[in-house]
Amino acid sequence: MQASVDAVLRYIDDEITSGRLVAGDQVMPERELASHLGVSRTAVREAIRVFQAQGIMTSGVGRGPASGTRISPSPADALATLVRLHVELGGFDLSSIMETRIALETSSANLAADRATDEQLTEVAALARKMARPDLDLDGFNELDTEFHIAIAHVSGNDLVADLTHAVRASVAAPIYRASRELEDWEAFRRRLASEHQALVDALRSRDAKRAAEIAEHHIRTAYSELFTSAETTSKTLATPRHEQR
Amino acid sequence: MQASVDAVLRYIDDEITSGRLVAGDQVMPERELASHLGVSRTAVREAIRVFQAQGIMTSGVGRGPASGTRISPSPADALATLVRLHVELGGFDLSSIMETRIALETSSANLAADRATDEQLTEVAALARKMARPDLDLDGFNELDTEFHIAIAHVSGNDLVADLTHAVRASVAAPIYRASRELEDWEAFRRRLASEHQALVDALRSRDAKRAAEIAEHHIRTAYSELFTSAETTSKTLATPRHEQR
Repeated sequence: MQASVDAVLRYIDDEITSGRLVAGDQVMPERELASHLGVSRTAVREAIRVFQAQGIMTSGVGRGPASGTRISPSPADALATLVRLHVELGGFDLSSIMETRIALETSSANLAADRATDEQLTEVAALARKMARPDLDLDGFNELDTEFHIAIAHVSGNDLVADLTHAVRASVAAPIYRASRELEDWEAFRRRLASEHQALVDALRSRDAKRAAEIAEHHIRTAYSELFTSAETTSKTLATPRHEQR
Repeated sequence: MQASVDAVLRYIDDEITSGRLVAGDQVMPERELASHLGVSRTAVREAIRVFQAQGIMTSGVGRGPASGTRISPSPADALATLVRLHVELGGFDLSSIMETRIALETSSANLAADRATDEQLTEVAALARKMARPDLDLDGFNELDTEFHIAIAHVSGNDLVADLTHAVRASVAAPIYRASRELEDWEAFRRRLASEHQALVDALRSRDAKRAAEIAEHHIRTAYSELFTSAETTSKTLATPRHEQR
């Protein structure tokens, strides 16, 4: 049985890799696919379930043009989920994640300074301004913070970097939230982040790619060192440290 | 039925996220998990199949200590598969992929210059030397090329960047292979790549992080512009261009 499921998985993978199936396409009906590959309909159904769980396929109902099983138009969320699980299982330490964010986000800042339109930068600037509002609480701030960093990745014009940024950020969202709540002076921390965001926006608006990348790197590095100060915390993995688990 | 499968998926995800299930752990037996969550054993089985397909779980046979369903010790290959499908479905153009590789690989080169041990750099140097052997064919060269780039990511000490590098490279392996075969003078191309690899090794050995990062960027950029020269090719997505597909 697993062998026939694998055959269906491989077949669909090949169809996508070769470009015969592209985003939004309807997948061959279950019955046809089963007879084409000489496997049971149950095997086809299981393979489809696997692709659905990976966000590679979506299923509509009814008989309209959106019905049936289709290749997902945007598997970014599924990628984020898998990268998050991968990061959690991989036992990567926080400094590896910090460096990965620096690699991705300095690249975005760099490209955004060259490529973002003035309109796009106005929108990014609006997010930075909202983050400076004094009535914002931790949840509201964290949400805007994520939105701000992903917005810069998007206006860099590189959606692959943006999707990876989104995925890596998703994998540290929980520890950042926990660490933020434990800060002695969150308000001071928040004011510093907000002013760094403003400096980044200014660098982007003056089209200074080098300065934008430097601010992005400094911003991520200092935030991590403030949030995860003690030696014990910086060397620990994202989830509860293993020796404390049982 | 899908609702109960989702319940199992969410439960396992939570267990991993909270750190209660870590790499290598045995998963609760099917029957127990089903009764714990109040779902059918079929739902449990389907959810496990999904995690297996994602490389999050592995299944052993028999009754020994390696038997049963376990949390995978290393889901890197599964990540590579999903990133590859994501890149193919996402319709990212080659220049986005090139920039993503530059972001990841300049970071690796930078860190490797500071952190790799002399022994590690000797191994990387050996790979570069092998690539200069005149009897190497395209397949052999491409294999060593991938090995070389991933080795630098690993000796940078950041396995998350290494895994992402592996995944992004996997998603361009096929178009690079096709484009290499179509080059008029592959031998000249290959000699240039090999000498750039040697220059990168030299920079790493002299612990010159800035120079190593510059060589890595230049190396990727010139290889892509040589492989994907015409305007039509550089703007096209990885898979067969959509307008040629049907």
